[in-house]
Amino acid sequence: MRGAGFHHGKVRKPHWAVRASEMSKKTFNPIRTIVDSMKVEANPKKPMISLSIGDPTVFGNLPTADEVTQAMKDALESGNYNGYAPSVGYQSCREAVAAYYSCPEAPLETQDVILASGCSQAIEMALAVLANPGQNILVPRPGFSLYKTLALSLGIEVKFYNLLPEKSWEIDLKQLESLVDEKTACLIVNNPSNTCGSVFSKGHLQKILAVASRQCIPILADEIYGDMVFSECKYEPIATLSTNVPILSCSGLAKRWLVPGWRMGWILVHDRRDIFGNEIRDGLVRLSQRILGPCAVVQGALRHILHRTPSEFYHNTLSFLKSNADLCYTALAAVPGLQPVRPAGAMYLMVGIDMEHFPEFENDVEFTEHLISEQSVFCLPATVSGPSYFSCICPEGELKEAAVRINVCKGCGEAMV
Amino acid sequence: MRGAGFHHGKVRKPHWAVRASEMSKKTFNPIRTIVDSMKVEANPKKPMISLSIGDPTVFGNLPTADEVTQAMKDALESGNYNGYAPSVGYQSCREAVAAYYSCPEAPLETQDVILASGCSQAIEMALAVLANPGQNILVPRPGFSLYKTLALSLGIEVKFYNLLPEKSWEIDLKQLESLVDEKTACLIVNNPSNTCGSVFSKGHLQKILAVASRQCIPILADEIYGDMVFSECKYEPIATLSTNVPILSCSGLAKRWLVPGWRMGWILVHDRRDIFGNEIRDGLVRLSQRILGPCAVVQGALRHILHRTPSEFYHNTLSFLKSNADLCYTALAAVPGLQPVRPAGAMYLMVGIDMEHFPEFENDVEFTEHLISEQSVFCLPATVSGPSYFSCICPEGELKEAAVRINVCKGCGEAMV
Ligand SMILES: Cc1ncc(COP(=O)(O)O)c(C=O)c1O
Ligand SMILES: Cc1ncc(COP(=O)(O)O)c(C=O)c1O
Repeated sequence: MRGAGFHHGKVRKPHWAVRASEMSKKTFNPIRTIVDSMKVEANPKKPMISLSIGDPTVFGNLPTADEVTQAMKDALESGNYNGYAPSVGYQSCREAVAAYYSCPEAPLETQDVILASGCSQAIEMALAVLANPGQNILVPRPGFSLYKTLALSLGIEVKFYNLLPEKSWEIDLKQLESLVDEKTACLIVNNPSNTCGSVFSKGHLQKILAVASRQCIPILADEIYGDMVFSECKYEPIATLSTNVPILSCSGLAKRWLVPGWRMGWILVHDRRDIFGNEIRDGLVRLSQRILGPCAVVQGALRHILHRTPSEFYHNTLSFLKSNADLCYTALAAVPGLQPVRPAGAMYLMVGIDMEHFPEFENDVEFTEHLISEQSVFCLPATVSGPSYFSCICPEGELKEAAVRINVCKGCGEAMV
Repeated sequence: MRGAGFHHGKVRKPHWAVRASEMSKKTFNPIRTIVDSMKVEANPKKPMISLSIGDPTVFGNLPTADEVTQAMKDALESGNYNGYAPSVGYQSCREAVAAYYSCPEAPLETQDVILASGCSQAIEMALAVLANPGQNILVPRPGFSLYKTLALSLGIEVKFYNLLPEKSWEIDLKQLESLVDEKTACLIVNNPSNTCGSVFSKGHLQKILAVASRQCIPILADEIYGDMVFSECKYEPIATLSTNVPILSCSGLAKRWLVPGWRMGWILVHDRRDIFGNEIRDGLVRLSQRILGPCAVVQGALRHILHRTPSEFYHNTLSFLKSNADLCYTALAAVPGLQPVRPAGAMYLMVGIDMEHFPEFENDVEFTEHLISEQSVFCLPATVSGPSYFSCICPEGELKEAAVRINVCKGCGEAMV
């Protein structure tokens, strides 16, 4: 028996020593860490232009479709979506998502869909069910920072595979495969890519699947930018090309429907060879019971959002993103020493830095630090192996101003800091 | 270097062996587990009456206030809440919550408020920041099952302290204190209580604080039913009585505003002696960055929800709950062998079972199993030490029918199963 104040025969001398848990300390957002470790402040004389956050609504002129807002209004007014939904989501909403994404090559049924609080929680649950602490996952570099944040939070090791700028940001498949060991729990494939704005071809996706199949590694596909590709390109959901590799595909309303604040995401379970089996499905259900899923009103609106949003809406968003990307490309291509890469989809553009043109900077981190301190322009350094890159998302209004500022940032303004 | 297919000189022979993680296996909802382990099925001849889920909207005649719905409509129509909010919530919403709960005894500022996806996520973050795997937390029995679900998911041990039915479900303070050891990370105090419907007096709360203070254990206060007490009673937020014990108080919109599906919760950080310090606050911010907080539209509505909901709304809800509790009490008190306990708040009522009246049942689990298999009435067994109890929440329409069925359930209907 435990006695009051005693334990293992030793007197416990209580004192206040409340420390934050290891988990909370391991959990960090690399973007924040980059910013913090930069230890630079924006130039107080220039208003900040942040080109680092993947929020389509910051453009200011990309409102969601009226049909999307109307669907929410209807759900709200019905009064039917104030109570608890099942933790994996309403059956009818899961059915609507399944029907929306189902196709002959990758059929989906209601039970293959798990709703989540944003694609972020979808990824969190997918990682939490696939990997144990001490295992590792394969993550793209450059890429979206949340994978590392979530993995470290869960005690999962991260191994980075390289995306090759000279090959339109395709995966370095040899290097990828070399990372696999018996502790590898899953491969994250983000297509279209956050940060590269690249879109994998069918052929490349098949090669990725071949690696996963040979190594027997399940795939966590982050397809939140699915279908957000410019007209030269075709987006292929990776599950439609897989014959055996089990895939958890994560997505949501955030980007394509321009409502990231609504926190609606989902996991699609593709497992035609029954490799995940009930265990992974049960695990996802159990994990969903921790915080009980996304807002029920958004769930109530989901079917109409998927069915009633007119195709012109998607089309207009893409035209806007494309023309923005072109503007951005042109403006930055005119800056000596910068080589922007034309994006094929999503909302990002990568910019190569010819470091010889910028002898005052060691690398892309120093370059982007300087962009902040001198020009108050915030871009993320890509810190890929090899050439230096930074990525940016371009709000239209501020784009020209940003390009002008980037243009004049050549280290000549250090005295201004 | 790791070679493809090789590791520590051993050839890796890939084969598909995707197992669900330990975490996903440890994560379970005891309610589900009880139901599963009961291995009984409802009587197909009688429609199920579930008295086990704390969803105020299942009553069917407890809609939220018009002002609450209107606030959501306004937020939605403004178009200002479609983008990402900061992961801890909009500054203005945190300020509104701080202002709503701040009082001279327990002042709150904007930075003391962290928004979360429901009170569930608030509790999850509070536990995740306070406890490491291998540490333990003190949890009320009988009580809300989520504490154990979340703790086990995080690898935290659960030690149950007893609530005493003969003392209006006050805490057995001696037994509580006897559980404390050097691995105790926090004490969960749920007041008003889910499952007991009890409300702690000021004096009892002070005694709980004295234990926490003497043992130097921070408190996680689950106050989601705060202010939901019947007129004979007064609800005291525990932080208003604390001089030194640091407290994370978790609450949200779910119960008092009757919109659990909206998934809006918050943590209030009370730390007047600076014992949590920056470490716990930073930890909470970091943890919030994993899934990026609650729905922005609900955030946009929050200020108006808190300010514009008329006091009659709260009053009417309480009258309804009170008259329902009375109905329930009267109906069950008439059943020989059952001793309902009059609740003082929240939405639950506990029922003592005089097991001598039910010789065919071993304990409260068997009794409630039988209620399901014979009468299709689903109540939760409380399995406290000592006398047997079950708890129920009473939807008005089905209440009389439920009482009738409970009345006739005396084991005489076993043949019907
Ligand atoms: C690649 C990628 N995945 C996931 C997310 C998160 O999506 P959500 O807002 O639905 O959590 C983002 C957001 O920027 C993203 O860029
Ligand atoms: C005591 C208690 N705490 C927390 C919760 C969860 O609240 P939310 O729906 O805001 O996650 C409940 C729900 O039943 C509860 O009874």
